[in-house]
Amino acid sequence: MNNREKRILLGHGSGGRLSHELIRNIMLPAFANPALSELHDGARLDVGGTRLAFTTDSYVVKPRFFPGGNIGKLAVCGTVNDLAMCGAQAAYLSAGFILEEGLLLSELTLIVESMRQMAVAAGVTIVTGDTKVVEKGAVDGIYINTAGIGVLLPGVNIGAPGVKPGQDIIVSGYLGDHAVAVMSERHGLTLPAAIASDCAPLNQLVAAVLTAVPQVAMLRDPTRGGLATTLNEIAAEAGVGMILEENTLPVRPEVQAVCELLGFDPLYLANEGKVVFIVEKEYSGKVLTILRQNPLAAAARVIGSVTAQPAGQVALRTTVGGLRLLDMLSGEQLPRIC
Amino acid sequence: MNNREKRILLGHGSGGRLSHELIRNIMLPAFANPALSELHDGARLDVGGTRLAFTTDSYVVKPRFFPGGNIGKLAVCGTVNDLAMCGAQAAYLSAGFILEEGLLLSELTLIVESMRQMAVAAGVTIVTGDTKVVEKGAVDGIYINTAGIGVLLPGVNIGAPGVKPGQDIIVSGYLGDHAVAVMSERHGLTLPAAIASDCAPLNQLVAAVLTAVPQVAMLRDPTRGGLATTLNEIAAEAGVGMILEENTLPVRPEVQAVCELLGFDPLYLANEGKVVFIVEKEYSGKVLTILRQNPLAAAARVIGSVTAQPAGQVALRTTVGGLRLLDMLSGEQLPRIC
Repeated sequence: MNNREKRILLGHGSGGRLSHELIRNIMLPAFANPALSELHDGARLDVGGTRLAFTTDSYVVKPRFFPGGNIGKLAVCGTVNDLAMCGAQAAYLSAGFILEEGLLLSELTLIVESMRQMAVAAGVTIVTGDTKVVEKGAVDGIYINTAGIGVLLPGVNIGAPGVKPGQDIIVSGYLGDHAVAVMSERHGLTLPAAIASDCAPLNQLVAAVLTAVPQVAMLRDPTRGGLATTLNEIAAEAGVGMILEENTLPVRPEVQAVCELLGFDPLYLANEGKVVFIVEKEYSGKVLTILRQNPLAAAARVIGSVTAQPAGQVALRTTVGGLRLLDMLSGEQLPRIC
Repeated sequence: MNNREKRILLGHGSGGRLSHELIRNIMLPAFANPALSELHDGARLDVGGTRLAFTTDSYVVKPRFFPGGNIGKLAVCGTVNDLAMCGAQAAYLSAGFILEEGLLLSELTLIVESMRQMAVAAGVTIVTGDTKVVEKGAVDGIYINTAGIGVLLPGVNIGAPGVKPGQDIIVSGYLGDHAVAVMSERHGLTLPAAIASDCAPLNQLVAAVLTAVPQVAMLRDPTRGGLATTLNEIAAEAGVGMILEENTLPVRPEVQAVCELLGFDPLYLANEGKVVFIVEKEYSGKVLTILRQNPLAAAARVIGSVTAQPAGQVALRTTVGGLRLLDMLSGEQLPRIC
């Protein structure tokens, strides 16, 4: 097939290998600039002498209401969290709505009310917006874009160059809850009450850690593509290896059970209220103490370390002692998870 | 019909009366804050001591390629222009893509290339982005959201409080070109070669005027809902009247002919490269001189004045001397025009 006939596949939106190819082949050649080329969750900018972070995400989750949240909650938390991952405190959000003709105003009102609640919880202000309406069938109910501006915390420098062998990898809690909650709602599965989306604003949690430990080298929230994809991105950018200890990975038994039933690997499932910290071992204890004081991170733990080898790759030390390479997500596992 | 059963109509996206009701009834009560409540094209903010403007728009234009542009060109110009209307020089943009499974990569590449060209022309940098892919049928090809950050020009204070009776109303050029170009492409009409979308970045034009005449009271680009809706918004906010002189309104004969054929009024058609200035009469000559030096505004002219009466309303003095009230657009004339 020649290049002019290639088409967009669902996998181009997975957050995994195809997404990276699309960005590398089409977006980066056109828009290349230092801020974009960092390929972080947001751009770090100097605007009139103030150090800002700027980020955007469109939300297309299906269904738009799910256990633990809805598309509006996700749209505020996701962008607040992307700013937090840049080492910034979220300040202002925009909200762009694309609505399908026929959407119930009562549904829109519930979604907007969730956005309001999350903005209050995160301490951000929604200051500008836009509403488009398209004819029935031209969009699936409602899509929301939010962009966010945050102020970079002083003395913090999050980025791949700071990631070095010997550092600890910490995750703030259980993996896969968001994806399993959305997928179950989509397919009409009845879940144990314990499983709901973990969608939450993480900015105050992250600010508490960064204020106490500004030496944190890397922060990332494992959303689309899950923990395995997120760590692969960091390993590749930093040119380091990572070894995870399988017996430390926090996965709820109920989530593990759903995954085994449906053939999913929780390491590739999206999270919306979790964060990965990479930090020198000497600071791990302090980071964990701060995290565990917050109900959003009560199950925080060290799950592995940065190594020299396998350079650019992530390996899992299994419970029986073998090493297994964890690749980036290829193809698409769960379209429209966020 | 009780409130719980009300549904979104196409008219809620028109930029006219129903759009205003939706924002006033659902968005504002949830998100109310001083920046949002200005209901300008963007929010004016103080971030760490720097005075910024912040804005967002989602673009859903159909078809995505039209004479004079495409959805990518529109997505960059529209947001650059919204920042300009706040009295800000655009600096950074985000780009959020929602792509339909099956979209040709060659089409996406053309759209991204247009975005690149317009970013270069406007002197802005696209620093952060997001790409979602939804299954075939869940979106119509491609929607793009852009958000923008601009730096407010010093000494400029654009806003309804500065609009006073006696000021001149200036428009930078011909009305209706964008809407007629898109509509013709959509319906397979063959247009005279002279008619193409006026889509263009207006930031340098606006900056040239504001640098020379910082006293400009109001700026607005008459996009969705057209000139009549834009002026109604300003008249209502400022509590003033406006009288337009019909014989001064710049409409190309070819656009007028298409409008007469199809029953449209060019005063309600969207423009994507035009700007309205409201300024004290003593500065009109200077503003016009600067505008006419730029090919984007060669046909700039005074089209009327701000008056005390009819308060909050806009009237047209027709060529035969009568006065006709120009209401805000009600319902929807041309869905998905931008």
